[in-house]
Amino acid sequence: MAFAAARHNAPCVILMPSDAPEVKIANTRAYGAEVVLYDRATQNRETIGSAIAAERGLTLIRPYDDPQVIAGQGTVGLEIAAQAADAGVTHAPVFVCCGGGGLASGIALALEVHAPGLTVRTAEPQGFDDMARSLATGQRQKNPTATGSICDAILTPTPGDLTLPILTRLAGPGATVTDDQALQAMALAFTHLRIVLEPGGAVALAAALFNEGLPDTVIAVATGGNVDPATFATALARFA
Amino acid sequence: MAFAAARHNAPCVILMPSDAPEVKIANTRAYGAEVVLYDRATQNRETIGSAIAAERGLTLIRPYDDPQVIAGQGTVGLEIAAQAADAGVTHAPVFVCCGGGGLASGIALALEVHAPGLTVRTAEPQGFDDMARSLATGQRQKNPTATGSICDAILTPTPGDLTLPILTRLAGPGATVTDDQALQAMALAFTHLRIVLEPGGAVALAAALFNEGLPDTVIAVATGGNVDPATFATALARFA
Repeated sequence: MAFAAARHNAPCVILMPSDAPEVKIANTRAYGAEVVLYDRATQNRETIGSAIAAERGLTLIRPYDDPQVIAGQGTVGLEIAAQAADAGVTHAPVFVCCGGGGLASGIALALEVHAPGLTVRTAEPQGFDDMARSLATGQRQKNPTATGSICDAILTPTPGDLTLPILTRLAGPGATVTDDQALQAMALAFTHLRIVLEPGGAVALAAALFNEGLPDTVIAVATGGNVDPATFATALARFA
Repeated sequence: MAFAAARHNAPCVILMPSDAPEVKIANTRAYGAEVVLYDRATQNRETIGSAIAAERGLTLIRPYDDPQVIAGQGTVGLEIAAQAADAGVTHAPVFVCCGGGGLASGIALALEVHAPGLTVRTAEPQGFDDMARSLATGQRQKNPTATGSICDAILTPTPGDLTLPILTRLAGPGATVTDDQALQAMALAFTHLRIVLEPGGAVALAAALFNEGLPDTVIAVATGGNVDPATFATALARFA
């Protein structure tokens, strides 16, 4: 978001939970954005965002419950469809890291058209599996707590109004992983893929690694490398 | 090499210095290759390799002084030429991590044809700048020692017979960086590029970051992520 704003020379205020990694806050500021922090446990992001937008005459862009955001994230689905076709893969689960469900929804919509044999499966941290439970019960579920996982980027309270119907229609059952499994996936990505993942960006890979009964070919989306060095070093020390 | 052999279902023996990172040895074995270790300081790689090849009826593939290896590595130059053209870059130095000079030679040959305004500059660890000194003096130079840098992948004793003439004709002056600068480049790649680099694969980025008097647009090739977790954690602890 901050990067896009910088590219368009537009002013940008980013509302971010105060437990976001320092590196994420610093990188967002480096793109020229103003970062406003809020307490995930006691403050409501929607209220603060709407208030700032109204006060300053800014346009509020929601991180997932916005058709254009979902469409933009859907380009990942186009890439998956193209790469899967190149690899001769027509049927596979596609694990996607899931907070509010914007990325998963965009990918699911793209795959519906371009690779209908590929099925999105959301991946969430244990205890923050509001999407998995909402999909399983057919009723919108909320998480019991707002904090308590290292997967800070995807700790959202409940599925989006736009995303839940899309995923109800198109996604398979949601998967959950433990924080330790996310750290193991980070270590594996370091050793074998040479990429840097943050915990919340590694849950899809973790779901692909640690779920049982999966077919031989599984697709996982790796998203986000905003991880503080100490957390990354912990993943390496424990699991690499 | 091991990966290529595995793809072709061909037996493969890899001769590797005994100070190679454990992760590199393990990954090479995981591809099904046999790894033979030698002591960089006291043993001659060429002699051992030729002996094994003769004994077992294998074909010896040199890591850089082989026309087909140079040509294969030259595909990196084709990618650079295409990406630079997309970005509207016609003139820039292209820093390349340099051991024996195979990758640098291949890139230089590709750029000569496809992007003649881009000029290869070799990057080496301080104390192991045989290529830089050979280019500067017009005479083949050797390194005074065989070990003593963390950049294990590119500690070769002297430029190749094929590579030196190519780089003499096509490359700019060679650059050198300290081990600490390589670690800083690894930390920067972690924070900003989200990729895992080994020290020897980060020297080109380090040369681009820490050389003075460079133009605004500089290209650096990041090569290799065979780094043990402890070394990577050190780079993060000190510089990220």
